[in-house]
Amino acid sequence: MSVITVVGSGMMGSALSVPACDNGHEVRLVGTHLDREIIASLQADRFHPTLKRTLPEGIKAFQLEEIQEALAGSDVVICGVNSFGVEWFGETILPLIPGHIPVLAVTKGLRERGNGELEPFPHYWQGLVENRLSINAIGGPCTSYELADRRQTWVYFCGDDPEVLRKLKELLETDYYHVSTSTDVIGIEAAVALKNAYALGVSFAVGLQEREFGIGCTPAYNPQAGLFGQAAMEMTRLVRFLGGSDESINVGLGDLYVTIFGGRNRKLGTLLGRGLSMQEALEELKGLTLESLMIITTAASALRKLAQRGLASLEEYPLLRHMDEVINQDRPVSIPWKEFTRTV
Amino acid sequence: MSVITVVGSGMMGSALSVPACDNGHEVRLVGTHLDREIIASLQADRFHPTLKRTLPEGIKAFQLEEIQEALAGSDVVICGVNSFGVEWFGETILPLIPGHIPVLAVTKGLRERGNGELEPFPHYWQGLVENRLSINAIGGPCTSYELADRRQTWVYFCGDDPEVLRKLKELLETDYYHVSTSTDVIGIEAAVALKNAYALGVSFAVGLQEREFGIGCTPAYNPQAGLFGQAAMEMTRLVRFLGGSDESINVGLGDLYVTIFGGRNRKLGTLLGRGLSMQEALEELKGLTLESLMIITTAASALRKLAQRGLASLEEYPLLRHMDEVINQDRPVSIPWKEFTRTV
Repeated sequence: MSVITVVGSGMMGSALSVPACDNGHEVRLVGTHLDREIIASLQADRFHPTLKRTLPEGIKAFQLEEIQEALAGSDVVICGVNSFGVEWFGETILPLIPGHIPVLAVTKGLRERGNGELEPFPHYWQGLVENRLSINAIGGPCTSYELADRRQTWVYFCGDDPEVLRKLKELLETDYYHVSTSTDVIGIEAAVALKNAYALGVSFAVGLQEREFGIGCTPAYNPQAGLFGQAAMEMTRLVRFLGGSDESINVGLGDLYVTIFGGRNRKLGTLLGRGLSMQEALEELKGLTLESLMIITTAASALRKLAQRGLASLEEYPLLRHMDEVINQDRPVSIPWKEFTRTV
Repeated sequence: MSVITVVGSGMMGSALSVPACDNGHEVRLVGTHLDREIIASLQADRFHPTLKRTLPEGIKAFQLEEIQEALAGSDVVICGVNSFGVEWFGETILPLIPGHIPVLAVTKGLRERGNGELEPFPHYWQGLVENRLSINAIGGPCTSYELADRRQTWVYFCGDDPEVLRKLKELLETDYYHVSTSTDVIGIEAAVALKNAYALGVSFAVGLQEREFGIGCTPAYNPQAGLFGQAAMEMTRLVRFLGGSDESINVGLGDLYVTIFGGRNRKLGTLLGRGLSMQEALEELKGLTLESLMIITTAASALRKLAQRGLASLEEYPLLRHMDEVINQDRPVSIPWKEFTRTV
């Protein structure tokens, strides 16, 4: 038995307690300052109010002030914050974690280093602290609800050290939670961050159809699939530009598939496709964290700088550019199909 | 105005009459010996009984015996047969078409030349006739219903001659039917043939869940997305092995996306996932043509031969092998997740 401490008791970090407890580990869930009610509820009866599931008996819940107690004796720390908590985790939490304890992050996103260079969160964190054994990350198609329900799920653990990855896999893999390992950190992290962006773009088609035929109409798949193909092309180009592998691109495409059907990115894309302005859509989605906005803005900004330096061509990313215009310049959704087509 | 003759009045060939007529062309639909009732219905009131739509006014319908009349003065011939009609089209129809008239085929599939070598249909047909200008094919995500309803659709026309491809694009492209062109015939054709195979495999997850929770249960996306990722990996490997490009692989992945949500391959995969034997599933689907069975069998057979020759590794295709076992050896569906995972 090991002790696994999860910092950030959002849906994904908390869902990981299910395979961890099934493997007999002690799981300690530490809430951020945003998670007070979640922790109080877990302490009362182990019910997670946003995941809407009762967590296994093996969990212990801690408020942020008790983090030192939760970290004491931990074998692994899971970073469960979303991409808005990356700096906070790096600056406030990481220094509390002894350097020999591996970290595994569920956070998805990319940081721009300036000059258009994109960096995965594990490498950013690694740069903040000295003498750290290993910071790793989870990517791949996994909705938290379904993991908590023990549905068949296949993810990638990526990091720089194969030994550590094997150990993490051994701790968490079950007969429903399947784990591959990869040292292609930039490839996996870029691919699974970009899928949040492109899930929004594919969902534009859902809203555009509802605008024409009314909410609740039978969905058309040709437009969604055309956008999926274009998303795959742009993700392939960008991940390959960053040095990522084919395998990682395909992990991102599986992740794109699941993201289109689940949750908040689809809701926002659908609302924008229906014709709502960005402000109207955000009002309707009040309270939801929208990581897609951050990654679209970051990737579009990076590509503009890379294009200025002659390292990338903006014409190769018409869908990303359109998403950026829609969310940051309040342009109405209008799929640039003619920019997608190519003629030999 | 041009004259476009479609041989094979199935759903996809017939749906192409919509953009063709919108562009002002005369469209002549010729039925095969299997299409007699379709042609009779079209002649009566232009209603297509399997597409379940009334076709545009610009169409003329012909029974097979009238094919010479239909071909006379044609500028382009569209081959609308499915993969079970490939030999018939090549041996019986192609010799009737003057060599200077380009052919554009909607047929999706691959032929095994023996020794494990896979060949796209345009190249097979080209080998049957001498002095033919050009045989081209359409790939990419397009369900016939939605094309007939003028939903936004993006496809690829592939062939050996860019000039001919540009002409075909000019004839058929509209503001809802977007056309890219490509000379990567093997890449596009392999990718869009394989998606029929892998759509079956992804659908296994739908049936497996229904077996556990009852028909009509809320679908889980983690298992489908894991299978989608594995399908993407195997398609990438095989298309790349055949010399196809990244762009073509992504066209196939968009096509896989649309195929999972439409039609017969999903139905069969779901029934097999529920636990029906192959025979029981086929009885339930009586009357449906199942091109997925042909491409799974062809690709699995080719890979075994390529593996014997040391050119491919069967371990890289666990999902294809499992689908082959299910449909050809009546094995029950049981996703080989542990064969998908990789450890560095």
